[in-house]
Amino acid sequence: MAKKHQQSFQNSLQDSGYSDTISTRYLNKDGKSNVKKVGAGLMDRWSWYHTMLELPYPRFLLYLLVAFISTNLLFASLYYLIGTEHLTSIDRSSTQNEFIDIFFFSSQTFTTVGYGRIAPVGILASLLSTFEAFLGLLFFAVATGLFYGRFSRPRAFIRFSDNMLVAPYQDSKALMFRLVPYKNNSLTNAEVSVMAAIEEDSVRKFYSLRTELSRITSLSMNWTIVHNIDEKSPFYEFSQENFKEIPIEIIIHINAFDEVFSNTVLQKTSYINSEIIYGAKFLPMYYPSADKKTTVLDIKRLNYFEKVFLNNNN
Amino acid sequence: MAKKHQQSFQNSLQDSGYSDTISTRYLNKDGKSNVKKVGAGLMDRWSWYHTMLELPYPRFLLYLLVAFISTNLLFASLYYLIGTEHLTSIDRSSTQNEFIDIFFFSSQTFTTVGYGRIAPVGILASLLSTFEAFLGLLFFAVATGLFYGRFSRPRAFIRFSDNMLVAPYQDSKALMFRLVPYKNNSLTNAEVSVMAAIEEDSVRKFYSLRTELSRITSLSMNWTIVHNIDEKSPFYEFSQENFKEIPIEIIIHINAFDEVFSNTVLQKTSYINSEIIYGAKFLPMYYPSADKKTTVLDIKRLNYFEKVFLNNNN
Amino acid sequence: MAKKHQQSFQNSLQDSGYSDTISTRYLNKDGKSNVKKVGAGLMDRWSWYHTMLELPYPRFLLYLLVAFISTNLLFASLYYLIGTEHLTSIDRSSTQNEFIDIFFFSSQTFTTVGYGRIAPVGILASLLSTFEAFLGLLFFAVATGLFYGRFSRPRAFIRFSDNMLVAPYQDSKALMFRLVPYKNNSLTNAEVSVMAAIEEDSVRKFYSLRTELSRITSLSMNWTIVHNIDEKSPFYEFSQENFKEIPIEIIIHINAFDEVFSNTVLQKTSYINSEIIYGAKFLPMYYPSADKKTTVLDIKRLNYFEKVFLNNNN
Amino acid sequence: MAKKHQQSFQNSLQDSGYSDTISTRYLNKDGKSNVKKVGAGLMDRWSWYHTMLELPYPRFLLYLLVAFISTNLLFASLYYLIGTEHLTSIDRSSTQNEFIDIFFFSSQTFTTVGYGRIAPVGILASLLSTFEAFLGLLFFAVATGLFYGRFSRPRAFIRFSDNMLVAPYQDSKALMFRLVPYKNNSLTNAEVSVMAAIEEDSVRKFYSLRTELSRITSLSMNWTIVHNIDEKSPFYEFSQENFKEIPIEIIIHINAFDEVFSNTVLQKTSYINSEIIYGAKFLPMYYPSADKKTTVLDIKRLNYFEKVFLNNNN
Repeated sequence: MAKKHQQSFQNSLQDSGYSDTISTRYLNKDGKSNVKKVGAGLMDRWSWYHTMLELPYPRFLLYLLVAFISTNLLFASLYYLIGTEHLTSIDRSSTQNEFIDIFFFSSQTFTTVGYGRIAPVGILASLLSTFEAFLGLLFFAVATGLFYGRFSRPRAFIRFSDNMLVAPYQDSKALMFRLVPYKNNSLTNAEVSVMAAIEEDSVRKFYSLRTELSRITSLSMNWTIVHNIDEKSPFYEFSQENFKEIPIEIIIHINAFDEVFSNTVLQKTSYINSEIIYGAKFLPMYYPSADKKTTVLDIKRLNYFEKVFLNNNN
Repeated sequence: MAKKHQQSFQNSLQDSGYSDTISTRYLNKDGKSNVKKVGAGLMDRWSWYHTMLELPYPRFLLYLLVAFISTNLLFASLYYLIGTEHLTSIDRSSTQNEFIDIFFFSSQTFTTVGYGRIAPVGILASLLSTFEAFLGLLFFAVATGLFYGRFSRPRAFIRFSDNMLVAPYQDSKALMFRLVPYKNNSLTNAEVSVMAAIEEDSVRKFYSLRTELSRITSLSMNWTIVHNIDEKSPFYEFSQENFKEIPIEIIIHINAFDEVFSNTVLQKTSYINSEIIYGAKFLPMYYPSADKKTTVLDIKRLNYFEKVFLNNNN
Repeated sequence: MAKKHQQSFQNSLQDSGYSDTISTRYLNKDGKSNVKKVGAGLMDRWSWYHTMLELPYPRFLLYLLVAFISTNLLFASLYYLIGTEHLTSIDRSSTQNEFIDIFFFSSQTFTTVGYGRIAPVGILASLLSTFEAFLGLLFFAVATGLFYGRFSRPRAFIRFSDNMLVAPYQDSKALMFRLVPYKNNSLTNAEVSVMAAIEEDSVRKFYSLRTELSRITSLSMNWTIVHNIDEKSPFYEFSQENFKEIPIEIIIHINAFDEVFSNTVLQKTSYINSEIIYGAKFLPMYYPSADKKTTVLDIKRLNYFEKVFLNNNN
Repeated sequence: MAKKHQQSFQNSLQDSGYSDTISTRYLNKDGKSNVKKVGAGLMDRWSWYHTMLELPYPRFLLYLLVAFISTNLLFASLYYLIGTEHLTSIDRSSTQNEFIDIFFFSSQTFTTVGYGRIAPVGILASLLSTFEAFLGLLFFAVATGLFYGRFSRPRAFIRFSDNMLVAPYQDSKALMFRLVPYKNNSLTNAEVSVMAAIEEDSVRKFYSLRTELSRITSLSMNWTIVHNIDEKSPFYEFSQENFKEIPIEIIIHINAFDEVFSNTVLQKTSYINSEIIYGAKFLPMYYPSADKKTTVLDIKRLNYFEKVFLNNNN
């Protein structure tokens, strides 16, 4: 049934930007592209800044600490090679104590603490410590930039419902999912675009899905996006079985203006067959507060829905 | 009268993004959304960066100072546990003096001042002070980012009149409010959008209000926004009593391009019944300077208006 | 003649955002608005960040230095009040020497140099020096942000010709001015908007002036903007005398995308009567290089024009 | 043949922003404008920030180091002029040793390490060292800003195919080139604009080239841009010889939204005659991974094409 329909459904997209090669999904659930790039050197196909901005905080801090310790060790070794007689007050009672003193002299130089209990004397040690302090300041200059880059990076802070539902809608049915801005951010002029990739004869075809609303002035509450499965929809003749068996992926792009970042933010996700529930509808997420003075939005209800009967013959 | 009218007035908005749950107001006067989010952990629904950017300066500085002192105290306690014999020149005449010396050694390390009167000796104290100096530099890296984030955050610096007026306009009347960029900022291509939420049968309906001008090339003076109450307005048949009794909220979004930030800035506010004055008109805010060479804009006159007679029967 | 024409010329603008109060000019030559704001406290109508970004470098650096020295003096006075016995190695041979030593101890703390020749002993001096080092780091955090804000501030680096010319054009004449991006910046998608304010019966009316091109893909060369004075122009019946006597101001806004800033940049200027030359045309600004391999753009030729005869009766 | 055609082909562009002066090419291969600016002072036509952002890293770091060493040398000389008796612990056994000690005291001040083995005594040396520490902190403030400016600068990270191909297309032929985002960046809403400059009677004329797709939702794979050489194309009657002999340049602008920078990025390039290959088509760049779970994009295949027969008589 769906096959027949799709042959007559000609308005497939040329401009999706995704390949028609078959793969499990185009976008991973977190919105990242499911593409592996090869054929160029690592440094060449890798933006360290993009990576450093996307690392989780614990790993980011660990990398900074590792870089800090490694550099200190390197400089400590160089001071040792030059000779500890060029540093004042070194404890030479054992090689271990000597290296400990040198290492901490190095770290006190790199951080520009410079207590001065140990201090360089003579040109070589002085030169090295000057260079180390210079490097140390650049290191923290870079760290400052990375911290700022990380926390000023505009992000949408939008959470999508885990599932897309096929729900009753008007006289027929509709694909529905919803989203909520879950932080104390303030989004305006939100726009959503929905695209479907449907496998037909082992090739993926792309369709733009029309939604009841594609733009909303102020995204302060949850927003349910509704694609009416009418005769213009590529899913018009899809049965419950088709939704299970024909490989489909529904790709969501949402962008909005964030008031604090004063910037456009963008977030993506996708739904595949196993994430589409046939015959269900969402339950409300908000209610008036007890004193009726404000609206309460319950974020954990994002994924609350109930099963409903849906006529398989549309 | 208003009831009858509204039933025939069908073009209510679907895309406001605000709920139809009854609450006192959607937007607080300062433009923030009057929604309380629950059902997610605090960390999860809280963007610390958005919060740090919106704190008033005194509290922001206080938080920095508290974090600074707490960290110093924590490290001082750790040095104490390690033993003060690993620090030079500590005054051990009393436990109090000992702790004072340790605390200030800690703060001299954290800030990387490192006078060196007190200095670490041995691996444990040295390691701890190295780590403290590292943390100290990251602390000030983060502070640098927050300062920059705070003062580079694009803001509109627009002040709205406290009241919206129902004023005589052409042959009829109009809703008017005005705004002024009150700082030495320079805004261009300002656009305003005005939306009304009107309670009808215990449900809020949303209407887009047309204004005489919705876009202005250069926002260097005050700007009075005029919504003509003609037959296309949802307020067409509103009497003075209706403006008092039917719960309404008029929501304003304004965005513009700021030349110094080179960025779009956005500001919001809203007016509710008690802020709408029936029968009044604004007084001018600007006049030529004495030497006729420049225009003087008097910001305190933003809220100057005079009462005028307005025929209740439109 | 012009009078008659203008009464029939009804499409004056409502949305200029400039007042119709008579003043010498709306925009100063540098593009800043010629409006003086009063009626609000200085702090209230003054954005210190906008100001710090627009200061010339010498004054900006001077302000930093003054703030640095004042803070040091303040702290030096506080150390003096506490008593110099809480600082090691102070030269107490004279009050002057004492204060010099304290002042430089203060500055060594504020900059976190902390040589340690002079160091605090006891709770009061230590507390004060800790606070000073903390403030010092915040001071340089703010300075870092201001430096970055200053040099990363997107600017168009466009220079406008000093004069606007009334030049022969096609069968008639046209208003022409030109502009050039004078630095090694790269602008794309440049758009210009031209507005005229013409005094009529002691009131300024605003007109949008159509230009032959209002958008250019790549702004790598000079660009001459041409407003054809045809029957749709408000200057259609202007004689050479009118251009001298009727107060007019022509306001220019140009925006473009700068590739290095990756941001929209905007620049404004205006021309008044005394800057409009009747009967002149621009001379070319560029020529092929000697080896024909590149184009040479001579920025000093921006204002090169020659007088031409222009029939006063159009 | 081409001549005749072009005389009848009137829709040449006026708004390219490039000159019609003959030069080898308008855009260099790296997308920079091939224009040399003269007639203004170096400082006046040079944006040091644009330059510092575009320097390769080794030269950028070298410049910082040179500035650091020069400033240190300058201050060392000033301390020497003041007299080394104002610094503690200077080794005066030889002028060389003296200068070495002074130089490293200077660098320890500039970096705010301040070990304190050498410390200033008296007003002149103290004043100078205070000023040096102040300058040092500003120096690293500027460096911090430059680092952040460099790595946060939005860039497209797009690689273009070395050659443009004239390939068979539908019943006729088409100009094709392709591009690939080669890093772990994520681009959406990519738009391409293609412009041709064709020499006709010693003057360059500009044409906008229509492409099969000019906008793509998600640029995660390679993208082949196709200009169909149909009767609306300025190349309609071009033979293989024309593509070799008539000077042409095809200028490409692509912009997209980068999700990590949350900013529009723009990249440019151009193709001239010697980079256009007549009779060739691109080979695929991607394939499914072995486990069919992802798509593999092989970046080194960007320039893989094969020769094909192309009828010279279209």
